Amino acid sequence: MKRAVVLLSGGLDSATTLAVAIAEGFHAHALTIDYGQRHYVEVQAAARVATALQAQEHRMMEFDLRCIGGSALTDEIEVPKNREEAGIPSTYVPARNTIMLAIALGYAETIGADDIFIGVNAVDYSGYPDCRPEFIGAFETLANLATKRAVEGNRIKIHAPLLSLSKVGIIKKGLELGVDYGLTHSCYDPDPDPCGHCDSCLIRQRAFAEVGMEDPALART
Amino acid sequence: MKRAVVLLSGGLDSATTLAVAIAEGFHAHALTIDYGQRHYVEVQAAARVATALQAQEHRMMEFDLRCIGGSALTDEIEVPKNREEAGIPSTYVPARNTIMLAIALGYAETIGADDIFIGVNAVDYSGYPDCRPEFIGAFETLANLATKRAVEGNRIKIHAPLLSLSKVGIIKKGLELGVDYGLTHSCYDPDPDPCGHCDSCLIRQRAFAEVGMEDPALART
Repeated sequence: MKRAVVLLSGGLDSATTLAVAIAEGFHAHALTIDYGQRHYVEVQAAARVATALQAQEHRMMEFDLRCIGGSALTDEIEVPKNREEAGIPSTYVPARNTIMLAIALGYAETIGADDIFIGVNAVDYSGYPDCRPEFIGAFETLANLATKRAVEGNRIKIHAPLLSLSKVGIIKKGLELGVDYGLTHSCYDPDPDPCGHCDSCLIRQRAFAEVGMEDPALART
Repeated sequence: MKRAVVLLSGGLDSATTLAVAIAEGFHAHALTIDYGQRHYVEVQAAARVATALQAQEHRMMEFDLRCIGGSALTDEIEVPKNREEAGIPSTYVPARNTIMLAIALGYAETIGADDIFIGVNAVDYSGYPDCRPEFIGAFETLANLATKRAVEGNRIKIHAPLLSLSKVGIIKKGLELGVDYGLTHSCYDPDPDPCGHCDSCLIRQRAFAEVGMEDPALART
């Protein structure tokens, strides 16, 4: 059975991605990066999700992005609420997905995995540059030049199974695969209960409304 | 004056790279990643070098690659001595340069720098895949897709000024620019004094012999 590294933040998208990797038959090694995020509760959600979906293992690694700063998620910058203006919001974290994929790549090489899953989505999202298909493609090209495993003839693949799904499509897929969204946490605020007004909450709420069910994470509060 | 982030390990190559960045007129922000390397003395060497060359600042960040393992530099694997066999040696660290460049990219974005320097070399080297020109090119492509700064129209450049120089060429360039190689540390062993027999020591010794001078780091011992 092939091994895969699955980046798991603890949010709705990465929980769905883990379920997809397992459904595709991979031995899923879930990897959560504790990056000093103000909303640390998502790291606790990741542990719950990995257990519930029966990942092969769940590893936590630490890289404190607060030493870089420059984001509402890691710095003393306010998380925007009920945002209407266009553009990349202050919740963008400089080079976050590049750093996370780089760490996942090193980990994958050590455990002998050629497949890395990441739950990025370029439809119902905040416009982060490192969630776009061209970014994922460029990272896959890089991965196949960067590692001993690739030089030895293995082909590294970056899977982004949610890339072109709407949020509604993601939720429907996850429900089919038995994801319990009550275990996930998507809000950007440090509070354990979702604020309901940040980009992440708004996108999630609208999608659950469209699916015609209450967000089970809200039912928790 | 333009800012640049310069990855500085404390070895001969990165010290020379820092001198090149400064000579090219950049405000050099030296960045050392403490990755849990067994040869931690190189991190101390980095601080000496940054001070001597008068870098604009010297930042240390921590990502403990021991949590990934799989290398003689971060794991309980022996550093090969007087190596004669071909191939990528056990001192290869999975995805190290990808991880370091990713962190440098995030840091560069936060301080408003579009230029990142790395002292990789593909001539007198150990055959690491992430020291080759195609790797550097692929990372530059990725960087220009990954960040808000790039999306806003800035062009990120990865400088690898030593890429096609021989070790002798690197030393000659550094001496011209006033690098004091007595401050640098290249050996892979945890000991403060160079072992003289690992790849890194051997390549360095041969080059100093060819330049016709004693390695000032050996004179220190």
